[in-house]
Amino acid sequence: MLPSLFLLLLLLVGGGGATAGHGHDDAAARRTMEEFAGFPASESDGGAFPLRVDSENLQRQIDELASFSDSPSPSVTRVLYSDKDVQARRYIKGIMKQLGLVVREDAVGNIFGRWVGSEAGLGAVATGSHVDAIPFSGKYDGVVGVLGALEAISVLQRSGFQPKRSLEVIMFTSEEPTRFGISCLGSRLMAGSKELAQSLKGTFDNQNVSFVDAADSAGYKIHPEDLHNVFLNQDTYFSFIELHIEQGPILEKEGVPIGIVTAIAAPASIKVEFEGNGGHAGAVLMPARNDAGLAAAELALAVEKHVLESGSIDTVGTVGILQLHPGAINSIPSKSHLEIDLRDIDEKRRNDVIEKVHKSAIDISKIRAVELSEFKIVNQDPPALSDKSVVNAMEFSAKQLGLQYKLMISRAYHDSLFMARISPMGMIFIPCYKGYSHKPEEYASPEDMANGVQMLALTMAKLSLE
Amino acid sequence: MLPSLFLLLLLLVGGGGATAGHGHDDAAARRTMEEFAGFPASESDGGAFPLRVDSENLQRQIDELASFSDSPSPSVTRVLYSDKDVQARRYIKGIMKQLGLVVREDAVGNIFGRWVGSEAGLGAVATGSHVDAIPFSGKYDGVVGVLGALEAISVLQRSGFQPKRSLEVIMFTSEEPTRFGISCLGSRLMAGSKELAQSLKGTFDNQNVSFVDAADSAGYKIHPEDLHNVFLNQDTYFSFIELHIEQGPILEKEGVPIGIVTAIAAPASIKVEFEGNGGHAGAVLMPARNDAGLAAAELALAVEKHVLESGSIDTVGTVGILQLHPGAINSIPSKSHLEIDLRDIDEKRRNDVIEKVHKSAIDISKIRAVELSEFKIVNQDPPALSDKSVVNAMEFSAKQLGLQYKLMISRAYHDSLFMARISPMGMIFIPCYKGYSHKPEEYASPEDMANGVQMLALTMAKLSLE
Repeated sequence: MLPSLFLLLLLLVGGGGATAGHGHDDAAARRTMEEFAGFPASESDGGAFPLRVDSENLQRQIDELASFSDSPSPSVTRVLYSDKDVQARRYIKGIMKQLGLVVREDAVGNIFGRWVGSEAGLGAVATGSHVDAIPFSGKYDGVVGVLGALEAISVLQRSGFQPKRSLEVIMFTSEEPTRFGISCLGSRLMAGSKELAQSLKGTFDNQNVSFVDAADSAGYKIHPEDLHNVFLNQDTYFSFIELHIEQGPILEKEGVPIGIVTAIAAPASIKVEFEGNGGHAGAVLMPARNDAGLAAAELALAVEKHVLESGSIDTVGTVGILQLHPGAINSIPSKSHLEIDLRDIDEKRRNDVIEKVHKSAIDISKIRAVELSEFKIVNQDPPALSDKSVVNAMEFSAKQLGLQYKLMISRAYHDSLFMARISPMGMIFIPCYKGYSHKPEEYASPEDMANGVQMLALTMAKLSLE
Repeated sequence: MLPSLFLLLLLLVGGGGATAGHGHDDAAARRTMEEFAGFPASESDGGAFPLRVDSENLQRQIDELASFSDSPSPSVTRVLYSDKDVQARRYIKGIMKQLGLVVREDAVGNIFGRWVGSEAGLGAVATGSHVDAIPFSGKYDGVVGVLGALEAISVLQRSGFQPKRSLEVIMFTSEEPTRFGISCLGSRLMAGSKELAQSLKGTFDNQNVSFVDAADSAGYKIHPEDLHNVFLNQDTYFSFIELHIEQGPILEKEGVPIGIVTAIAAPASIKVEFEGNGGHAGAVLMPARNDAGLAAAELALAVEKHVLESGSIDTVGTVGILQLHPGAINSIPSKSHLEIDLRDIDEKRRNDVIEKVHKSAIDISKIRAVELSEFKIVNQDPPALSDKSVVNAMEFSAKQLGLQYKLMISRAYHDSLFMARISPMGMIFIPCYKGYSHKPEEYASPEDMANGVQMLALTMAKLSLE
């Protein structure tokens, strides 16, 4: 172990998390820290003790960020390139600057805050997540991995730690697919998706605003060639670690404070449209109808059926969007639009479900005499594995911090899924209330967040010195 | 038969409709007309002949009115109190004034154009329909009964006809339930619905704009007590006749130019909401879900099932609105909202279907462990019968005009359903292309409209003299 990491360890473990509050005031650790940081550590149990995670400040920042929302508190709605998204971006850059990080933004608005290390030429150790929020969701999803990462940087700075490899916090653009139907837009592009760079030029939201115009309204003037500049080289990062709430109930149920993610489940998303003749709800008799809405209802139920048929608890499928056109009580739907999300940790099993859903869509369209005017697999990503080097660093940190941990699978996908294409990747999970996410009741306790921040800080520090 | 009606008949029949073009140039009729109107009728086959329905002008007005739309041509979207609705209202009032009618508007914007008769104290003969249009619908529904009625007035004026009872054209406010979920808002209120007058004070659209504020933005400043002023006395009208496209395929299929409506089917509308826990589409495993969207899908299919179970071709049911909340591809629906339209010419049979749908909603909520947070019967109107006096006048007119007609039921409802509560009522149907309505393909031929206008003109004239 390198000497400076040893010092840091002493500081972190000695200082204690807001949680753990071990309070074991190791005299040796304090002396080492004083020597290292140049100030007395006598107030070791007070809130001002510099090595503690400042949970109050972190919570305040989370609450402040949540106020940039297009729906009333406690819900959060923050859609890509909206005014609230722009305000949130400004807020994040402000904190980065306060911490003395070197801030840059790429063409689509991925934001990078870098603490330049003593060997700036080496690949950096990066962390980060997103702050966009789907309509009527909560304030912790993604946010813990951005504000928590900035707190981890702050903890390391307060400890007097000096990074060798640079440390970098990334706020990714549009992890959520809300506006343009593209999930992990920023990280997907960063990881070099040429298809995405190509298709973004002709991508529109449901208000018919182009991606380029939406970006422009948020202050990002995109020229087609800029999109390739977002791509990052394979040697940009030595490792990437994302801190995130579990978005599932396992850690809370088992009383384990830390999850170390070994793999991320493979998501697929599908857009479907049916078209029929529509007509007046009073005048067109039942045998003369071909109702596009009822076709959609049948397909939604078929998705559930095929998912359950897989026989595995790990297969999940959701119809989160189902829209009828024209959408009037006295009008037979002439068009319906569904968006289907299918996931599994087993790629083949998930793809089998996609095929069954496709067959059902065709069968329904025949039986109901509606047209299946679209069946588009928008993405069908392979699963990602965490890198051994990063998992090792995380396990090391958990042990050093005395935090119990569980090796687990991420069923939700994250920017890490795409960062894994260009960097060794790992993820740290913390428990969240009842596993709730994507709704206002989403909650993570200050204690759990402090544990996560400590884990992240120590893991990054360790990797920085490698 | 009164002498002036006889003259009018000669004029109408002699002049011929744009359709019929009987061209039987009855010399006696022409002489009578000349004597009556004070100008020569020698150009009887030219478009300028004053007694013809001016089909070109009527079509031009229909096209102009269709340009006040919030969706691209050929579709029409004109929602209550929107800017386009206000423009359409101005357009209709303009034509009323050109025709020299006395124009008044009530508190909610029902517009009345009166041709004052020689015995102004008697109950008037009224006609009319609506010009609001559900999203992405067509340009004939309702409009034919307003612009066609104004053309009927124009025909009568050009014929030199002098009404005894006043003739009145009404443009009803919000026949369509699009904005506030209330169908036939204007006529329902005119007919004295105290419940509606009461509930309108607390009615909001889905953007949370109150009815009162919406009306205000369209120039109607409503005070609560004003709503009672909309109510009309039972003796206001001697009769009410509405001209309308059939919105069904029967007349076209049978090649009959005129439908005389003897009854209007009884509509009911229901709002349903389910609520579940929602959550993240990746992280919440299938057994832990209570998906409000799938509950809605099942109920939509149950509506179809129960309607078909009735065994009668006359029972129809439609789910025209199905909305999911939060409406994101990666979020399990935590809330769903359906609006159901059920109709029948048999009120009891329709009410039986309502009960079955209610039972299904309860069963689904139990099986899926979602909450049935709303099951609200918004309206459940009884059917209306046409009045013998009006049907007789319509049959008389059809025979005089040599137009084949069919006695039939209206499966769509209309403002006439409510006008029947305060006045003897009847309706004239004309064929429409394939029975299409509530979509851009809606179409009625100039010939069929001309027949309808002649029917209306003669029926009103006859009733005016009674």
